[in-house]
Amino acid sequence: MLQNTLARIDRAVSGEALERLFQLIRIPSISADPAYAAACRNAASWCATQLNEIGFEASVRDTIGHPMVVGHYKGAGEGKPHILFYGHYDVQPADPLELWETPPFEPQVSGEGDAAKILGRGSSDDKGQFMTFIESARALMEEEGALPVNVTVLLEGEEESASPSLLPFLKDNVEELKADVAFVCDTSQWDAKTPAIATRLRGLLYEEVFIEGPAYDLHSGHYGSAARNPIHVLTKVLADLRDDEGRIQIPGFYDGVAELTADEKAQWESLGFDPQAFLAEIGLKEPGGEKAYSVLEQIWARPTAEVNGIIGGYTGDGSKTVIPAKASAKVSFRLVGEQEPDKIREAFRAFVAARVPGDCKVTFKSHGGEGAITQPSDSEWVARSLTALTEEWGTEAKLIGMGGSIPIVAQFKRVLGMDTVLVGFALDDDRIHSPNEKYNLTSFHHGIRSWARILSALGA
Amino acid sequence: MLQNTLARIDRAVSGEALERLFQLIRIPSISADPAYAAACRNAASWCATQLNEIGFEASVRDTIGHPMVVGHYKGAGEGKPHILFYGHYDVQPADPLELWETPPFEPQVSGEGDAAKILGRGSSDDKGQFMTFIESARALMEEEGALPVNVTVLLEGEEESASPSLLPFLKDNVEELKADVAFVCDTSQWDAKTPAIATRLRGLLYEEVFIEGPAYDLHSGHYGSAARNPIHVLTKVLADLRDDEGRIQIPGFYDGVAELTADEKAQWESLGFDPQAFLAEIGLKEPGGEKAYSVLEQIWARPTAEVNGIIGGYTGDGSKTVIPAKASAKVSFRLVGEQEPDKIREAFRAFVAARVPGDCKVTFKSHGGEGAITQPSDSEWVARSLTALTEEWGTEAKLIGMGGSIPIVAQFKRVLGMDTVLVGFALDDDRIHSPNEKYNLTSFHHGIRSWARILSALGA
Repeated sequence: MLQNTLARIDRAVSGEALERLFQLIRIPSISADPAYAAACRNAASWCATQLNEIGFEASVRDTIGHPMVVGHYKGAGEGKPHILFYGHYDVQPADPLELWETPPFEPQVSGEGDAAKILGRGSSDDKGQFMTFIESARALMEEEGALPVNVTVLLEGEEESASPSLLPFLKDNVEELKADVAFVCDTSQWDAKTPAIATRLRGLLYEEVFIEGPAYDLHSGHYGSAARNPIHVLTKVLADLRDDEGRIQIPGFYDGVAELTADEKAQWESLGFDPQAFLAEIGLKEPGGEKAYSVLEQIWARPTAEVNGIIGGYTGDGSKTVIPAKASAKVSFRLVGEQEPDKIREAFRAFVAARVPGDCKVTFKSHGGEGAITQPSDSEWVARSLTALTEEWGTEAKLIGMGGSIPIVAQFKRVLGMDTVLVGFALDDDRIHSPNEKYNLTSFHHGIRSWARILSALGA
Repeated sequence: MLQNTLARIDRAVSGEALERLFQLIRIPSISADPAYAAACRNAASWCATQLNEIGFEASVRDTIGHPMVVGHYKGAGEGKPHILFYGHYDVQPADPLELWETPPFEPQVSGEGDAAKILGRGSSDDKGQFMTFIESARALMEEEGALPVNVTVLLEGEEESASPSLLPFLKDNVEELKADVAFVCDTSQWDAKTPAIATRLRGLLYEEVFIEGPAYDLHSGHYGSAARNPIHVLTKVLADLRDDEGRIQIPGFYDGVAELTADEKAQWESLGFDPQAFLAEIGLKEPGGEKAYSVLEQIWARPTAEVNGIIGGYTGDGSKTVIPAKASAKVSFRLVGEQEPDKIREAFRAFVAARVPGDCKVTFKSHGGEGAITQPSDSEWVARSLTALTEEWGTEAKLIGMGGSIPIVAQFKRVLGMDTVLVGFALDDDRIHSPNEKYNLTSFHHGIRSWARILSALGA
């Protein structure tokens, strides 16, 4: 039966299944921009329709922000496991548009065979990814008339915008959403041939800093250098954040950060990660993080302070001799181990304030914060999933860390008491959050087949 | 005769003269923005028409950029001095527009009596200022039928955009433009009641720095901190520019910077400058420059390194977890004494390059450079002008420094062999280069009368 389902998947993947994914990618569901609110709702409706077609009871559920999609399938019967599957239908903004080689919301396949890629914003993060699960469920229902396990699907529309509606929604619907375990398809595999389950995720704290100096923009000849320039204040603060060894200088920053165990170090070394290739892929040679740690440790196991944006003064063409009234920056921190977001926020704000002259004004804006999380690597869920992945890909599935953060994993544990298994088929070069995002057709194809194997294994 | 001319000026100032100035301010002659090229040409034509009406032979002269206006009056006859008067008809951009209380190109008078102000972009810098000279020439011609001296008027249209066409134009027209001395009306008086001639101008060097790191924008979880963030590189470079005492760290930066003589120090101390009031006017308390120097020294006699603009990464609303591919900043240096712009440019670029990791790319763009200049304070031109100003304002005219730069003064000396007398009626709170620029009606009125006195004194 599984073989027939897999064959059905093979027949549909480059035709109907791809066309369905294209329909979804065409909807510009950019959650960060209010101008696309209607598109977000359209994407939610599209997803609910898909689930209903397949045999779920699904609906679009309003929230204080973009809607959720919730669907239930209970046809596996009592005694079978109940899993919750999570994904997000919203996408990053596409800017800068001029750097896209094909239009971000006009999906297409480029290349052939193993090199074939699905192009478009959201093709990898997260639409191509979660559609591997939904297409798998469709194939199983069409072929076998039932799913091997009971499934609740939860798709949110704000993952790219700090998910303000999510926690309230989880808290308001605990009984409905609670399951035995959660599965999330929003992570990467180890490489194009090697599947993986991610068990370590970094946390994320996001702050915005605004510094104001003079009461209004000034002429830089008339007032410079007597008038304090907020750009000077800001760049000094940001430069002070790290020393020449790359170590973050905020007091208490490394509290709760553990060194790797000997086992972890050994396991990671056995992965065969190539730091030079990793950096060369993005046009660099020298690692930018703490000099005392390897590149892999820098991205999986060490905390960071990253300036994501900075602006102040005149930024148009040509020259303007101005001392601006204000300057600002967006700073985010990836967290690991037991680092506490609230403590780090407080320490960061104190660090900044201590460096701002008494007659200048500094204000902050929070864009959320969630700690790091490590998922069990030895549960039955993980064991069966690893076996299923290994069978599909013909290469032993690996347990890996992730540089990125998926705050909902912490929230599933805290609010719904569930662990999460992170199975994903994205690749390092998918350019998520960047222009020219893509998702390999092999990821889509073998991803759908992988879920069919995983669900069958869980229900056995 | 002078008294009659002054009376004529008094009759016209709040009526026709003000209306003529308003006509000029209404033309949005923003030189930095190509969208306003036609407006710049219109402003040039308007000025040429004014000069021709008064009795000059004037025309608009094409250049590689915005046109010049050149007008000649030779009716004073041989044996009378020949002065060149310079001003600029172009203005700064008006942004940020939302901070203007009245529309920048709809001039109006606000307030009454000594508090009456002419509002609008260019009201002070430089239209109100140079119109004091032209209105004075008009009144003298109307009342006396002739000017006391021969006059060449030169108005350029790129002073706010680093004057690319000016030097070539001077070099191509040396014989036509050469005069005994130049007068420029683009500086400030000491305060609302005290006229001044500026004899020290700082030089200006303007550079733009671009730093590129990764080949494209990256996801900051996936790549942070292993991927070098160009914002981090840039902020470190800019923070390194000065130490905690405010001293600029570029090697060789202070070569050619002289300490004040005891006489200069004494003269400046006698001016009665109030540093606290100066800073309070712009909402600050603590001076931002070299701690070893007074506020007045910081703006008149010390060199600066000022970041006029910085941009990199995501600067829209909300949060985006990106490591940008590039970041850039505009940096300008006010120069004093014998500091050489070319040497400082070279030293700055070396300073930056030494701090950029080997796998990142740094590029520079020059926006011009001109050294500081000190004008003679004891010439007959200056002596007679000081006397005329003292008579008009009833307060002894002072010799002052300026924080700002007027590169043409160096070019007049170098190319045309002329000294320049800087007589201006602007005030510290005119908000030039900022929103809500204004020019006091008293500056306009007594400025016109001052020129009538000065020209009469020069021709005597």
